[in-house]
Amino acid sequence: MRTMTVIGTGLIGTSVALAVSRRGVRVFLADRDPAAARTAAALGAGLARAPGETVDLAVIAVPPSQVGAVLAEAQERGLARSYTDVASVKAGPEQAVLRGAPEPARYIGGHPLAGRERSGPLAARAELFRDRNWVLTPSRLASDDAFERALELVALCDAVPIVMRSRDHDAAVAVTSHVPHLMASLVAARLREGPAGLSRVAGQGLRDATRIAGGDSRLWGDILEANAPAVAGVLKDLHTDLSRLVPALDALARPGGADRDLGMRALVDLLDRGISGLAEIPGPPDCESYGMRVAVAERPGELARLLAAVADLGVTAEDAAVETAVAGAGFTVRFAVPARAADKLADALGAGGWDVEWDPARPSARNGRLDDVVGPSGSM
Amino acid sequence: MRTMTVIGTGLIGTSVALAVSRRGVRVFLADRDPAAARTAAALGAGLARAPGETVDLAVIAVPPSQVGAVLAEAQERGLARSYTDVASVKAGPEQAVLRGAPEPARYIGGHPLAGRERSGPLAARAELFRDRNWVLTPSRLASDDAFERALELVALCDAVPIVMRSRDHDAAVAVTSHVPHLMASLVAARLREGPAGLSRVAGQGLRDATRIAGGDSRLWGDILEANAPAVAGVLKDLHTDLSRLVPALDALARPGGADRDLGMRALVDLLDRGISGLAEIPGPPDCESYGMRVAVAERPGELARLLAAVADLGVTAEDAAVETAVAGAGFTVRFAVPARAADKLADALGAGGWDVEWDPARPSARNGRLDDVVGPSGSM
Repeated sequence: MRTMTVIGTGLIGTSVALAVSRRGVRVFLADRDPAAARTAAALGAGLARAPGETVDLAVIAVPPSQVGAVLAEAQERGLARSYTDVASVKAGPEQAVLRGAPEPARYIGGHPLAGRERSGPLAARAELFRDRNWVLTPSRLASDDAFERALELVALCDAVPIVMRSRDHDAAVAVTSHVPHLMASLVAARLREGPAGLSRVAGQGLRDATRIAGGDSRLWGDILEANAPAVAGVLKDLHTDLSRLVPALDALARPGGADRDLGMRALVDLLDRGISGLAEIPGPPDCESYGMRVAVAERPGELARLLAAVADLGVTAEDAAVETAVAGAGFTVRFAVPARAADKLADALGAGGWDVEWDPARPSARNGRLDDVVGPSGSM
Repeated sequence: MRTMTVIGTGLIGTSVALAVSRRGVRVFLADRDPAAARTAAALGAGLARAPGETVDLAVIAVPPSQVGAVLAEAQERGLARSYTDVASVKAGPEQAVLRGAPEPARYIGGHPLAGRERSGPLAARAELFRDRNWVLTPSRLASDDAFERALELVALCDAVPIVMRSRDHDAAVAVTSHVPHLMASLVAARLREGPAGLSRVAGQGLRDATRIAGGDSRLWGDILEANAPAVAGVLKDLHTDLSRLVPALDALARPGGADRDLGMRALVDLLDRGISGLAEIPGPPDCESYGMRVAVAERPGELARLLAAVADLGVTAEDAAVETAVAGAGFTVRFAVPARAADKLADALGAGGWDVEWDPARPSARNGRLDDVVGPSGSM
């Protein structure tokens, strides 16, 4: 790929332009707000002008409802040989292209799974897509040429191509992105009507849980409308879940009530289903890990010395847990180590006098979270 | 304070013990699971045995439903001169103490606003409470002595003391912690029944939004039961909110429907209320920031050069935005700078030839999030 036009120089469009410019592609930038295109150019993302010739690929980085019209207009003036978009809803834009674009075969839908809560070109980063999934949704008419060009774009952005049907994509993001956004908005909106002193008991957990609610409301209104059928379906399921949860809490609020046990069972069942649902979320890239066991003598500070030795090597052993603790005979500590640091760590701990053993039954801590053996039952 | 006993050596109890041990307090550790107490001792948190004399303070770090009984038992054997707890619900434990403890005046309820999704002593950290709020909820009977001892504990842990009434505390954490946890559980539980391919479109946003759902379900069942009346109230409000949101999405799912505009207004209104609710969450400690304006010439890469210069100084300028962009005359970039880095940054940018100006109207970016002037409307 030699030349590219990016239409819409917001966060995603400008990040794409920065990434491919670095790889030597000549990028032209357009936005209905000329200041946005000029800002992207001043960031080094490309040239804020129309290309003098037909480019190899046009990346349409506008809200989902505008993809069809922007693409049709671009094809009418012969802007590019191939086209893709980056909207986070795929079925609607695909239908719009099949229905209204002069050359639907030249288009492949795309959705890079990357973003930030901030918007606009100044938030853009060339590395935004590195190791992230980038879904491509070829329609029944899509040409091999267009598909190859889209794959080349994904490669230039160091992302991982994933091919899905547009409807399957939309059903999945309703559950993983659109409904979680709305639930975060509902929770955050309740903070406005909360009791006095509320902000003094609001911490990092709440900040993380509601961060996605910070996205631009007009853009998100457009996204949610474009995927409204799938989103409405999941919202109804959640509404039903909540209709069951409220009576469970009501039962627990009546001390000594006959339905207290039922309420607690329903509550713990939901919490457990939530925990098991978390296993569906893959870890961050590069997080494959191995289970390791280390024997530790029972002396004050000895466990701390082991954890410090691990930390000194720059390794994060988040899932550390005491597996066995025989009085007088010390502890066996089990933890998960990132795969690429495993050998280095084993060598260093061995040299430090520790007895290290790999856990063959648990090649990855991500596929079976290590549980604490001590702790939760007897303590807080 | 010279001596302390920690009852319950889970995450919070062990972290408290580690923090105060460092400051020279002699700490004794107890847990109904002896292996947990010995693990904490091997971390350097103290001695896993009973103290030979009455200690200055006992910290009761057990689930909320057990605080009353554990405290009563400890007071019956004269364990300590003062008592506090760390449970995340305060009214129930206070009532249990007033009702059943031999010396309720010696008790001050406490709740450090710190935690991790992992539990157990190995997850403990001496720094867990640094700069975090630590709520104290003295009852009508509480003695000045007990209050001063609790304040000393908070100071030894480098935390910030906040005094609230127990009922106000519980109403506030229902909104900021308990209901967000349940909503995250509901969202995460839906991942189990989601469509195929779901995990390929699950990313960092979802991981952050659902992380709190990973807590121990038995402990959380206990916490939620202890605060069930307040939690049930907020859940009902959310249930009502959701009952209004579902028809809005349904309306948007019917293209061309007469109520489409009403649906979009309801949706964007919710998203906007969510964004404004986020302002109730204080920034992380140490995040006071000043607004700064920098003039930048319009040359390719010039904005990138400014952002790189800022980053090279180790300053994170997350709220960067182009404020004015006059064609040919360059840009004015506005951003927020952490207060403690502000002077250093202004000097360095000035020395680098940039024209820097402080924004007197916006002393803190946290109290009025800087909006992008370019971007969202015309791009994605």
